[in-house]
This record gives sequence, structure tokens and C-alpha cells, in this order.
Amino acid sequence: MGSKSDLPVARKAADVLKRLGLDCSVAVASAHRTPDRVAELVKGSDADVFIAIAGMSAALPGVVASLTQAPVIGVPVSGNVNLDALLSVVQMPPGIPVAAVGLDRGDNAGLLAAQIIAVKDADVRKKLAAYREEMAEKVRKDSAEVEKDV
Amino acid sequence: MGSKSDLPVARKAADVLKRLGLDCSVAVASAHRTPDRVAELVKGSDADVFIAIAGMSAALPGVVASLTQAPVIGVPVSGNVNLDALLSVVQMPPGIPVAAVGLDRGDNAGLLAAQIIAVKDADVRKKLAAYREEMAEKVRKDSAEVEKDV
Amino acid sequence: MGSKSDLPVARKAADVLKRLGLDCSVAVASAHRTPDRVAELVKGSDADVFIAIAGMSAALPGVVASLTQAPVIGVPVSGNVNLDALLSVVQMPPGIPVAAVGLDRGDNAGLLAAQIIAVKDADVRKKLAAYREEMAEKVRKDSAEVEKDV
Amino acid sequence: MGSKSDLPVARKAADVLKRLGLDCSVAVASAHRTPDRVAELVKGSDADVFIAIAGMSAALPGVVASLTQAPVIGVPVSGNVNLDALLSVVQMPPGIPVAAVGLDRGDNAGLLAAQIIAVKDADVRKKLAAYREEMAEKVRKDSAEVEKDV
Amino acid sequence: MGSKSDLPVARKAADVLKRLGLDCSVAVASAHRTPDRVAELVKGSDADVFIAIAGMSAALPGVVASLTQAPVIGVPVSGNVNLDALLSVVQMPPGIPVAAVGLDRGDNAGLLAAQIIAVKDADVRKKLAAYREEMAEKVRKDSAEVEKDV
Amino acid sequence: MGSKSDLPVARKAADVLKRLGLDCSVAVASAHRTPDRVAELVKGSDADVFIAIAGMSAALPGVVASLTQAPVIGVPVSGNVNLDALLSVVQMPPGIPVAAVGLDRGDNAGLLAAQIIAVKDADVRKKLAAYREEMAEKVRKDSAEVEKDV
Amino acid sequence: MGSKSDLPVARKAADVLKRLGLDCSVAVASAHRTPDRVAELVKGSDADVFIAIAGMSAALPGVVASLTQAPVIGVPVSGNVNLDALLSVVQMPPGIPVAAVGLDRGDNAGLLAAQIIAVKDADVRKKLAAYREEMAEKVRKDSAEVEKDV
Amino acid sequence: MGSKSDLPVARKAADVLKRLGLDCSVAVASAHRTPDRVAELVKGSDADVFIAIAGMSAALPGVVASLTQAPVIGVPVSGNVNLDALLSVVQMPPGIPVAAVGLDRGDNAGLLAAQIIAVKDADVRKKLAAYREEMAEKVRKDSAEVEKDV
Repeated sequence: MGSKSDLPVARKAADVLKRLGLDCSVAVASAHRTPDRVAELVKGSDADVFIAIAGMSAALPGVVASLTQAPVIGVPVSGNVNLDALLSVVQMPPGIPVAAVGLDRGDNAGLLAAQIIAVKDADVRKKLAAYREEMAEKVRKDSAEVEKDV
Repeated sequence: MGSKSDLPVARKAADVLKRLGLDCSVAVASAHRTPDRVAELVKGSDADVFIAIAGMSAALPGVVASLTQAPVIGVPVSGNVNLDALLSVVQMPPGIPVAAVGLDRGDNAGLLAAQIIAVKDADVRKKLAAYREEMAEKVRKDSAEVEKDV
Repeated sequence: MGSKSDLPVARKAADVLKRLGLDCSVAVASAHRTPDRVAELVKGSDADVFIAIAGMSAALPGVVASLTQAPVIGVPVSGNVNLDALLSVVQMPPGIPVAAVGLDRGDNAGLLAAQIIAVKDADVRKKLAAYREEMAEKVRKDSAEVEKDV
Repeated sequence: MGSKSDLPVARKAADVLKRLGLDCSVAVASAHRTPDRVAELVKGSDADVFIAIAGMSAALPGVVASLTQAPVIGVPVSGNVNLDALLSVVQMPPGIPVAAVGLDRGDNAGLLAAQIIAVKDADVRKKLAAYREEMAEKVRKDSAEVEKDV
Repeated sequence: MGSKSDLPVARKAADVLKRLGLDCSVAVASAHRTPDRVAELVKGSDADVFIAIAGMSAALPGVVASLTQAPVIGVPVSGNVNLDALLSVVQMPPGIPVAAVGLDRGDNAGLLAAQIIAVKDADVRKKLAAYREEMAEKVRKDSAEVEKDV
Repeated sequence: MGSKSDLPVARKAADVLKRLGLDCSVAVASAHRTPDRVAELVKGSDADVFIAIAGMSAALPGVVASLTQAPVIGVPVSGNVNLDALLSVVQMPPGIPVAAVGLDRGDNAGLLAAQIIAVKDADVRKKLAAYREEMAEKVRKDSAEVEKDV
Repeated sequence: MGSKSDLPVARKAADVLKRLGLDCSVAVASAHRTPDRVAELVKGSDADVFIAIAGMSAALPGVVASLTQAPVIGVPVSGNVNLDALLSVVQMPPGIPVAAVGLDRGDNAGLLAAQIIAVKDADVRKKLAAYREEMAEKVRKDSAEVEKDV
Repeated sequence: MGSKSDLPVARKAADVLKRLGLDCSVAVASAHRTPDRVAELVKGSDADVFIAIAGMSAALPGVVASLTQAPVIGVPVSGNVNLDALLSVVQMPPGIPVAAVGLDRGDNAGLLAAQIIAVKDADVRKKLAAYREEMAEKVRKDSAEVEKDV
């Protein structure tokens, strides 16, 4: 994450990953304030997937993507403009993709990372299927309540 | 792709994938006009990754993602509003991630798909590294020209 | 509605419909998390009109419209971007219309549904005329207060 | 339509309606330049549905809706801002709904009008089903071409 | 004003006008809910200037302008989109101008109305000059405080 | 006008004013490049109304308004952002109103200026009424053509 | 600053400048309400750099830039539109640059002013380097905490 | 510049700088495709000021700013979204300022760079004053033409 204030978003990603039995490590490193630290962390890592979380001009996901061949998921963080972070993360130039998820969607970043791992890991795939079934069950339960209530 | 008019964007993805030695198949199937065909194609496929391309309200990437556990890359297609397709693809609800790339960025969708495959395939990883080195070389060559010229 | 959190908007629609003597049933079903449930509900219904309520990438109205020939009213739900849901609901591709109403305007969705029913039901038409007259009366009463007050 | 320049959009609606065997009449009448003419046309009509087409501040759909109990479909017309017409048509105040379709989507306005008529007319419903099947067939044909081509 | 909820904005206009010794009358009348009442008020008035205040699709200023040759000042009211009301008021079609002021700027609407009256009334012109001098004095006083403080 | 490139917009205003028998003088003077010239022109003028035309950050209307007690009409000029000029002209701070018209709407600026003059000049009021009647006639003629044609 | 309400943003700039050992003076002066005072302050100053802070139509930075050859840093202040101030400050016409920083970024305005002074003052350069190192240290400390915590 | 396609914007900056007698060197180096080359160029340079030009997610200005204590001017390049590059350049996080100029405003970037140099170089200051006087003369000449013409 680009700033400690992005921690609630990072925690959503970490929670999903833990729940799916996947390891992750977290760090604060700013593309603008500590570019060397970003390079050190990315180049020194053998992670299958990176999740980069940042607000405002949100350069971190693109900078991480420039330093690795691994897939990089970018999470724009909301603020008082929102389109700034969102467009910075999505509108990457040709050649260096970032996989953007929605504003503050650390949870979806974690799930997408798991889906990517699941391409080679049938066990994760199974856990993802169970997770989705749980979600569907939750929607059906919500519906039952609402149908009674309204 | 959601409409035949999205073909130029799809071709950019296909070109990148072919160049990296990866197989892909293309189809037109609309989330709104042929939802059954979308389901048939997605559920009948054993692809590692899906790329869904659509403009305007751009529901296709999300609908594909709802039908599979595989990672889904969404490509918004430009039109006379642009933010419509872009936001539809990025702002997915919790639980069903789409990996959004920039407007009309079929090329980046192809690269991101290859990066995902490369998590399990060292050969693709090598080809991606070569591709990136070529891009960098191109930038350096452009710079040499420009430095002389201005 | 796409999520239980859309309930306050759904309730506004239900209240208007009840007041106009029209039956409605409500359910939670997500285009992304429970697509099969959406199809089951829509295809299993003989409703004259559907009202689909969703936020963010707001695919639900379009997905419902893809499953039925009945008119579908879409209600975008506000969030921290707003244009995402609003544009997703309005900017439907050619061939599959959605009748979009304003952000969180469950009340207008209910009225529009009643207006559609009223095309074949003179009794509803009469109730709508009475409802409108009441609204006008309310505006006139507000005006009287304000004219005295300022 | 609010101005003669909106004719191409109106024609799309008329073409769809004719094709579905439905009568329509067209007129130019401006909410701002000829408000009396708008009132005369709306109040003097026994149409089941109105389609109002306008650009920029696009008051016409709302003004028509204020003059009738029939459902009013609003079509925003594109220009150099786009969000002006689109938001004017969608963001109606509580009590007076407009059924908004996308920018320049005269075709969808025609289809939505037909869907509304179809609530009471099984014959139109059948024609709509045939129309949709044709669209789906067109998508499948496009797909066949594309699958061969790429 | 289009709705009683616009009263705080209307009051700002009324306060400025009173302070400058100008008469005004206020009313609630909705372009959409009570179009006849709007016509009655505008056509029955011999006001030199109209101020129309409305939010969301904000048709009121344009509708008032369609009913009179007098200058009409439009005040968009803020909400959860803001650009909706603002663009509706500003982006009037050729032939029917509205003099738009900023979001919720009832005060500026009052001042602009006074400036228009002042074209024919030297006394109002003098009061406006005094008002402006007071504002300037206030800025200078604020500056003195701030210069000491920081 | 702030730049010679705004001439087509200025000409629309001048044409309307001439047609209504009103005098006007035009000048190029930039709030940023020739602020002294702007002050000289505004302070040296006894015009009843000013029309200020500018694009991009469009400070001219506000700067003119800061230099005079006369009403100032602001015309934002379109470019590749549009919202920049439009918002700069509309969103004036409390105390210094600008009467904003739509993007490139020199014609409406001319009409609004004439409406302001007409507050004290019955002859202009009559010409405005005739102008509006002509516009209405044009709409009715357009309608007749369209009704035959579609 | 254009209004006393911009004081918190101005204070951020002053704090940074003081910390880097640089003198600054602050004042409230409005481009619209006290244009003469703005001219007096700018023309009477021998400052190396100006920082102009304003919200809404935010003409102050451009007006200051029109009055001096010194670099002018513009700080847009947030409100209920945000894009108004931001675009007004950034989108200056050719010939009169303003150095725009982000919404409410008084701190960055102070740092940029210091960087400009540092072009001729090695001592400030050293202090800036120390400041940046402190920031980097803070990021590393935040990271250490977070790494332990998640 | 981040890509050779930004050359027309870079040339505008170079032209202004040359005209004011200032040296500059140009290069293509992408924050995403050749991050090492960017670092090499910035760290190997003793330039007083950097101008970074980039479109879309436009990370280059911020990345350059992260590598130097010198002032960095950022020029967003227009495309089919525009707000992406503009917001990326302006909305920098606290601590690392970028001096943003308008879309494609290479000319203003050159002038701002010259203004920064002029803080220590009276000769450049004189040339800037002459340049501004020429601009003002041009505006006056344009005005003379227009005054005759309209």
C-alpha cells in the first residue's frame, strides 16, 4: 500500500487471502516517497501476484507493474475526487497492464489474486467455489428475510 | 466481445496472445441479446483466463465473471461517453472481481492474460520478458531519434 | 434488488405500488453472485413490469431485461461515485431497453410501473390522477406557508 | 422532438415502431420555444405512450410527463457535453417519472414503447419476441464470421 | 422555487434583495408537479426579473423563461450529483436564455437581479456600490486578522 | 472576448443585438495577458450590460464583474474539456455574480442582454416578443415538414 | 488566499515554509471582491514565488500570474464540486502559466516554492533533502508497524 | 516525454525555452516501460528544472519528482478521456509536489521553467517581460482587427 492510511483496504485483501488459505505479506511503500523501497520489495519478492493499493494520483500499481513480470492488481482508494485514483489505475499505457478493481475493493483484489493462483492450484479453485456458494447462500437468505419483511 | 464492432479491440488481444505463443478463441456473444450463448460459451470452455470486451453499459465482463471461477479480464470500449463502459467494468460489487484494463486496451488484456498463464508456465514468462525488453528497446530508439531531432 | 442494502429504495417503490392498489413481490438476487436465481425469478414470473434496483456497476436491470419481454425499470443506487450506477443503467446497447429513473428513485420506479399498468387499467389511471392532484395540492400548501414566512 | 435536428433519433424510434406494426405520429415542439404547442399536442393526444427527444438541458421529456398520466420515454441527444442531456432526462424529481433510455437511443425508445403496449397486446408481444430472436441470430452470425476470421 | 426544500437558497436571495431595498415575492411551484401554477404565477406577475431555483433535472428556470420576456436567473441546487442541476440550468438551447449562477448561490441571484434593476435605477446602483465596498472592507479586515495570526 | 479565436461566439451575440436594434462594441482583451486593457475597457465604458466570452480557465467574466456594477453575462467557450470553462464561469464566489449562459451560446448572451435592456425599454421588449414569435413559427414550420416526412 | 475560509490550506503552506527556514507573508485578497488589493499586494511584493489559494471558480492564481513575472503556484480548494477549482487553476491559457498542485495541497505548494528557491539556494536544497529523508523514514516506520500488525 | 507521440507537446516547450535563450535536452523515457532509463536520466542530470510530459495514467511527472529535489513541471497530454492524465498529474500525494500545467500546454511548461530560472537570473527575467509585452501587443492588435471587423 502507498500509505498507512490505505490499511483498511489492504486488510480486506489480506482477510480474503487468509480465508482461502493463501499466504501474503503486506508493506507500506510509496511510489513517490520511497521509490527505492518499492523496487527492493518487488524485485526481492517471489510472489505469484502483487496487489498495489493507492489513492489520488495512484502511481503505485503502475510502478510495481513496471518492476515485475507477475500480474499486478491495482486498487484505487477513494478520496474527495475518486476519479483521480480510479483513472490512474485503469488507464495504463500499452505494454504494462494493471488489473484494476473497484474503489476500495481490497476484497475483490484478494479474490482476483486467488483466482490467478487457482489457475495452477486446484485446491484454491475448490475453496473459491465454496466461497462463491456461501455468497450465493447469503443472497438467498437475505432474499428470504426481505420477502417476508416488505 | 459483446458486439462485432468490438473486433479491432479483440484483435489487439489476439495478436499479443499469438505472438506469445498462446492459444485463444474468439466469439461474439452479448450479455443482453444472447445471454444463453454467453453462458454456453463460458461454461463449455476450459480456458485458463477469459477476456470480455464491451462498450456502453458493458455488462459482459461481469456476467462472464458470474459464470466462472477463472480470472476474467474486462476491456471497456470507447464511445461518446467513455466513463459508462469504464466504470461498469471497474466498479464490480464485492465477491465477483473483474480485472479491468484501460479503454480499448485489448493489447494489455492479452498481456495480462499471458502474465496470468505465466504464473504456471516459465516459458511464457520468458517470452513476456523478451517482449518487455523489445518495448524498452523501442523507447530507447525513439529517444535517440527525438534527441537528435529537437 | 441486487443487494439487501438496496432495501430502502425498494421499499419506496413498494409503498407507492401498494398505495395505488397494485401487487408486487420483492426479492434479493444478484446478477453477479446469483445469476441463476435472477433467471429463475424473472422467467418464473408473470409480472407485467419488473423493477430492478442496483448500485455500482449495476448490471441487474440489463440482465433482467435480457431475460424477459416485459418492460424493465432500472433504479441506480447512489454510492461514492454515482455516475457508475447511473450510466450502467441508462446506457444500454441497442435492442434491449431499460427504463431508467433517477438515483435512488424507487418512488418514481413505482409510479412508472403504475403508469405502464394504467395503459390497460383505467382504475389505476384514476388513482394516478388522484395521486398527482395530491402532490400538486402539497406544493400549493408548501407555497402558502413559504409565502407567509419569507 | 425538441428540435428538427433530433430527427435522426426520432426516425430510429419510428422505424422500430412501424416494423412492430405500431402507429406513431411525430412532431417538433420545444419545451422552451413553443410550450403551448407542447401542451396542445400532449393534451390533445390519446397515445398510450409518449417518446420525448431532446438535447442539452433537455426539459422536454419532463415537461411532457407533467402534462399526462401516460408513460413518457425520454431520449437524451448527444452533443459536446452529453452529461447535460442525459442527467436532465434521468434525474427527475419524485412524483413525475420519465423512463430514460441511452444517448441517441431512439431505437430502444421505440422498443420500450412497444414493450409497454405489449403489456395489453399479445400480438405485439409476439412480434417483440421475433425481433429479439432475429437480433440473437444476428449476434450468432457475427460470431461465426469472427470465429473464422481472427 | 421548485420545492419547499429549496427554501434556504431562496432566503439568501430574498435577504439580499431586502437589504438593497427591493421588493420580492416568493412561491413554491414545480415545473413538473404544478406546471399550471408556474404559468399562472409567471404570466400574472409584472416582476422585472424572475429568480428560479431548482435541483436535480432543474427544469424550472427554463420553463419560467419560456413563459416570459423578462430576464430569468436560474439557481441550481446541490444534491448528490450536482452536475445534473448545474448543467440543466446552464445548457439552455438557442433562443431562450437563462442567467445561471452557481450551485446554491441564492445570494448571487439576488445581487444579479439587483444589478439588472440598477440598469434603470440609480438608487439601487448606489446601494450595490455600498454593498460591494462593505464586502471589500470585510476582506481587508479578514486579511488583517490572518496576517497577524499566521 | 478573451482571445481572437472566440470571435465566432462573439459574432453570434453581435448579430442578435444588431437585429434587435441595440448597439454593441467588441474587443479582444485577456484577463491574463492584458489585465490593464480589460480594466481600461470596462471602467471606460458606460455600457448597460457586458458580455464576456472565454474558454479554458475562463477568468474573464469574473474579472469583468469585479470591475463594474453592471450585469455581466459570461459565455464559456468549448474546447477539449468543456467543463473547465463552464464551471469557471458559473461557479462564482458569493458577492460577485456572473450571468452564465451555455457553452458557445453567444446568441443567448445577446438575447439575455436585450432582455436586461428591455427592463427599461419597451421598444426592445416588443422586438424580443417578435423574435420569439418568429422562433415559434420556425418550430411549427419544422414540425409540419417532419410530420409529412416521417 | 481568496477567502479567510482558505486559511487551513494556507497554514499548511506556511508551516512547511517555516520548517524549511523560509520567510513568507500571508494575506486575504479576492480576485473578484478586492481586485485592487490583489494588484497592490502582488506589485508591491519582491517575493521570489507566490502561492495563490482559491476555491470554486478560483480565478486568483491566474490573476496573480497576470500581475507578475515570478512563478505562481495555484492551490485549488475543495468544495461540493471540486473539479471547478481544480480545472480553473490548471487549465490556464497559453502565455500565463500557473503551477497547479492538488486540491487543498498547501503543503505541496510550500514544498514546491521551496524547491524553486532551492534552484539558487544550496542551503534550502539540503533542508529539502533532509525533509524527504524524514518522510521516507516515516514510510519505513509505518511499514514496520503494518507488517507486524496484519 | 513518456512516449514519442508526445513530441508535439515537447516541441512547444523546447521552442519557448530556446526563444528565451535557455538550454534544454529532450528524451523519451517511460515510467512504465523503461523505469531504469528514467532514473538514469534524472539522476544523471544537473538540470535546474524538469518538464515531464505524459498521457493516460501519466505517472512520469510523479516518478521524476520522486527522483530529484529539483522542481518538476508536469504536462498532461490529451486523449479520449483527458481527466485521466490531468488528474494523475495534479493530484500528487503530500510530500512530492508536481507543478501541473494544462492539457498539452508544453508552451506554458517552458514559460514556467523559465520563470523558475528567472528567480536567479535577471537576464531571463528581462526576456520574459519582453515576451509578455509581445503577447499583450498581439492581443491589442487582434482587438484592433476585430473592432473594425464586427
